[in-house]
Amino acid sequence: MHALILGAAGMIGRRLTKALVASGTVGDHPLDALTLIDVVQPDAPAGCAGTVRTEAADLTAPGAADTAIAGRPGIVFHLAAVVSGEAEANLELGYRVNLDGTRLLLDAIRRAHAADGYRPKVVFTSSLAVFGPPLPPVIGDDWIVTPASSYGTQKAMGELLLADYSRRGFLDGISLRLPTICVRPGKPNKAVSGFFSGIIREPLAGRPAILPVPDTVRHWFASPSAATGFLLHAAGLDFGRLGLRRSLTLPGVSATVAEEIEALRKVGGDKAVALIRRDPDDAVARIIETWPEAFATDRARALGFTADASFDAIVAEHVAEFQAGA
Amino acid sequence: MHALILGAAGMIGRRLTKALVASGTVGDHPLDALTLIDVVQPDAPAGCAGTVRTEAADLTAPGAADTAIAGRPGIVFHLAAVVSGEAEANLELGYRVNLDGTRLLLDAIRRAHAADGYRPKVVFTSSLAVFGPPLPPVIGDDWIVTPASSYGTQKAMGELLLADYSRRGFLDGISLRLPTICVRPGKPNKAVSGFFSGIIREPLAGRPAILPVPDTVRHWFASPSAATGFLLHAAGLDFGRLGLRRSLTLPGVSATVAEEIEALRKVGGDKAVALIRRDPDDAVARIIETWPEAFATDRARALGFTADASFDAIVAEHVAEFQAGA
Repeated sequence: MHALILGAAGMIGRRLTKALVASGTVGDHPLDALTLIDVVQPDAPAGCAGTVRTEAADLTAPGAADTAIAGRPGIVFHLAAVVSGEAEANLELGYRVNLDGTRLLLDAIRRAHAADGYRPKVVFTSSLAVFGPPLPPVIGDDWIVTPASSYGTQKAMGELLLADYSRRGFLDGISLRLPTICVRPGKPNKAVSGFFSGIIREPLAGRPAILPVPDTVRHWFASPSAATGFLLHAAGLDFGRLGLRRSLTLPGVSATVAEEIEALRKVGGDKAVALIRRDPDDAVARIIETWPEAFATDRARALGFTADASFDAIVAEHVAEFQAGA
Repeated sequence: MHALILGAAGMIGRRLTKALVASGTVGDHPLDALTLIDVVQPDAPAGCAGTVRTEAADLTAPGAADTAIAGRPGIVFHLAAVVSGEAEANLELGYRVNLDGTRLLLDAIRRAHAADGYRPKVVFTSSLAVFGPPLPPVIGDDWIVTPASSYGTQKAMGELLLADYSRRGFLDGISLRLPTICVRPGKPNKAVSGFFSGIIREPLAGRPAILPVPDTVRHWFASPSAATGFLLHAAGLDFGRLGLRRSLTLPGVSATVAEEIEALRKVGGDKAVALIRRDPDDAVARIIETWPEAFATDRARALGFTADASFDAIVAEHVAEFQAGA
């Protein structure tokens, strides 16, 4: 099977590429071709048994989506997006990339379907940002989508379009609402959620980290490998089991900042915890207050999606990767 | 206040026009200008105290949305849409009119807001079609949106965009999910829901009507005057009370086909009921099965939206209008 990854140069895209190449399969099929596209040229992976093509392309440019699917990939991983903070700061960019980019892709597939019966699986990464206040402590699979950001709005609109085009048979899609990825590797970024990873990653590297919210804040997490695992699991799933509801909120670990800190203490000791500097930021706290704390993800679990075992396990994965990389 | 009605030539648009002109007010303001736009030239109402402008325009044509709001109407009623059956039969037309048309309008307002601080109230008519199976017998305000049609998808996407643009302050919007209008006047049309009105309207006019579904089918109704009343009530409402949730499912009357028939019998007798011919249509029944039966519309009721008193009252309104027209 030919797999196409859009947004292949991002954190999840690179991990997914690595995992596909390592297994040599996608779902139940051998991986015989891999196309990697991003706005910057993705790295070509080593050791892929199939043909690899990498390309720098802007999916919103005229014809780019048609070109991307010209090789008729059997599965399309659509991870390409402008992140939350950027979509809020730059409205037109966010709608262009996150909404129009998705629509151009799905419309290119629709036209290909009309031309030659093409009907790929499409795995679209959505987000918890589709949910907004007021929220119950534990959010069920039937809970209303009311985004509190332009990013969440764009993801929710993409989910709707994907579900409609799946219903009409142009493609066979699923929207995966990923938990907040933690521990996100790399440098601190300006994402509002960055501190959730920062208070683990930075102290373990001997660097200070700022905590802008109270210890009682609770959120929903998945490790980078759990996130990659969700995408791989989706690749092998029969989407017919989803019915009309093509969007899935994925299992995660619900943890408070205090629980994060205790997990850090177990591996880094009091010395690591002492590197966390509390610097309350009311603006950040007000945004975080609107975020979900926990989900009952019965549908996703019934379909075989599994979360990390605990926040300790999330930290352990990070430590193992950090040590392997160091 | 200057009111703009998009889709002014339709059934609801004409009734809204008449009601605004009759009251001479919109919300708490005197109606000092009225702009009526549709793809066909709307009739200019008689007796309007303010300036009236009517125009035939396709909102999806370049610049048409900017032209429509050039007079900076304080309130925009956006009723323009391709109906459900047409949006399903012609995918591109449905997305162009129902999604792009709405987006072009909201983007024209966004640009006007950036240019001169323009920030109108926008009343957008959405639909029960945003809901899809599986559904509980009574649907609450927190229930997930999962459309089972392209029309419902387009309305749900419009709702999301309107909510985001309201949150960002470009406009002050509300999406009203109207119940199925009954008794819809005029000739039978090809809408799947047409029989709900047809089995009342046609026998009362001495004509036969076909009933394609079992008597046990239950659905959610509002009279034409209740629907117009919802729009007028919205015009006077402080949308700040909606918070992030700019979409409202509106109160209605939940009635079975059997209850419809008994209401018909009360005014038309057995002679009228005998004009209903049962002609089961499995295709229609399968579509209707996916439709909602009843809602708990606590939010809308708390905001002062009120339904018809009963299905008998709905029929009585139709009889009164029919007699007035005859």
